[in-house]
Amino acid sequence: MLGDVTPLELSPTDRSSIQRSKKRARTDRADLHATLDAGLICHLGVVIDGTPRVLPTGYARIGDVLYLHGSTGARSLREAGGGVEICVAITLVDGIVYARSAFHHSINYRSAVVHGKARAVTDADEHRQALEAITEQLAPGSWEHSRHPTQRELAATAVLALDLDEAAVKIRTGGPGDDEEDIAAGTAWAGVLPLHRYWGEPQPCDRLPDDIAVPDHVIAREHLS
Amino acid sequence: MLGDVTPLELSPTDRSSIQRSKKRARTDRADLHATLDAGLICHLGVVIDGTPRVLPTGYARIGDVLYLHGSTGARSLREAGGGVEICVAITLVDGIVYARSAFHHSINYRSAVVHGKARAVTDADEHRQALEAITEQLAPGSWEHSRHPTQRELAATAVLALDLDEAAVKIRTGGPGDDEEDIAAGTAWAGVLPLHRYWGEPQPCDRLPDDIAVPDHVIAREHLS
Repeated sequence: MLGDVTPLELSPTDRSSIQRSKKRARTDRADLHATLDAGLICHLGVVIDGTPRVLPTGYARIGDVLYLHGSTGARSLREAGGGVEICVAITLVDGIVYARSAFHHSINYRSAVVHGKARAVTDADEHRQALEAITEQLAPGSWEHSRHPTQRELAATAVLALDLDEAAVKIRTGGPGDDEEDIAAGTAWAGVLPLHRYWGEPQPCDRLPDDIAVPDHVIAREHLS
Repeated sequence: MLGDVTPLELSPTDRSSIQRSKKRARTDRADLHATLDAGLICHLGVVIDGTPRVLPTGYARIGDVLYLHGSTGARSLREAGGGVEICVAITLVDGIVYARSAFHHSINYRSAVVHGKARAVTDADEHRQALEAITEQLAPGSWEHSRHPTQRELAATAVLALDLDEAAVKIRTGGPGDDEEDIAAGTAWAGVLPLHRYWGEPQPCDRLPDDIAVPDHVIAREHLS
């Protein structure tokens, strides 16, 4: 079951210690980086007025720092930047595990969960580097290709930094973990149905001049792993 | 920007009132249902020891109730079932929006966020129906095909119910929202790169007898919208 995501050796705290499905836990920082780098969006958790909020947002990793961005008008982002504890989850679904029993149905996935106090990025260079990284995570090659942010645009964009000190990585691969009796019974199909993600045909903006061809960084974008 | 997800007419509370990108808000319950029904996993937010936790887990919708499941051993699930406030987000990425400016890069997505107090499901019939729905959400056709849960398996699986009373739906479609000056400059490519999800070849379990063919509900599973 996917409902039991937990942590890494990097993270010896209670909340980031793998309590469930320990065999799926990865302790390699390389697995954390690879999982974060493979995603497009994260889910940011923050407590507001005592209740949890979860919101999807863009992000990127530079070294061992995770950067998130959002409008300066978004209350969740403002609260999260106020030095409070946040939680960021990145989850990639790789396939559905069909088991002989309903109980052992599962998901093959890569999951990273990061805990910590976020810091609002105020340094101009770091802010700009983070926005470049977030743009490139979303659209590799776009930072070079597109007009860079103006001062007004920079001021309208909040960036949060979260150190990757306390993190949990879980990765599930392979077939179902059925009970021996069900395997022996041999009546139901069991296996994995892989889920792939691929880019479709680029759809040019209606207002694009005819002489602007789809650039390589868009047309030849690598499919997501 | 995706960092500003908010709510629906269904949900007149502060936390579920769309504050950002109001034009992306949907007030139709049908949009909420369609977004929830199109997902595979949700991200559950819960407050534990005063700090937010976000964890990916399976779910399903029956009418206007969202059901989530997990191991009874998972603390987050136990806490969430204790009548505390939770937040559940389902996010589907449909494409990357390439803009003429870095600032207007965006994501086409469908997002549903549900707030409320979760209830631990204790009624045996409701518990079983929820598990059937969650299995079918993950693997349509599997409930009929596979061995149903034993009493021991049912006892090991916690199910939470969350009414869809307070929910927010945001959907972004279409091209970039570039500034007129950038459109007039006409130097950068702009448009949408759609992201599709499709099922690969089913991979039978190593221990499956040769005479069990891949059933129709697996081999002919509809690709995700």
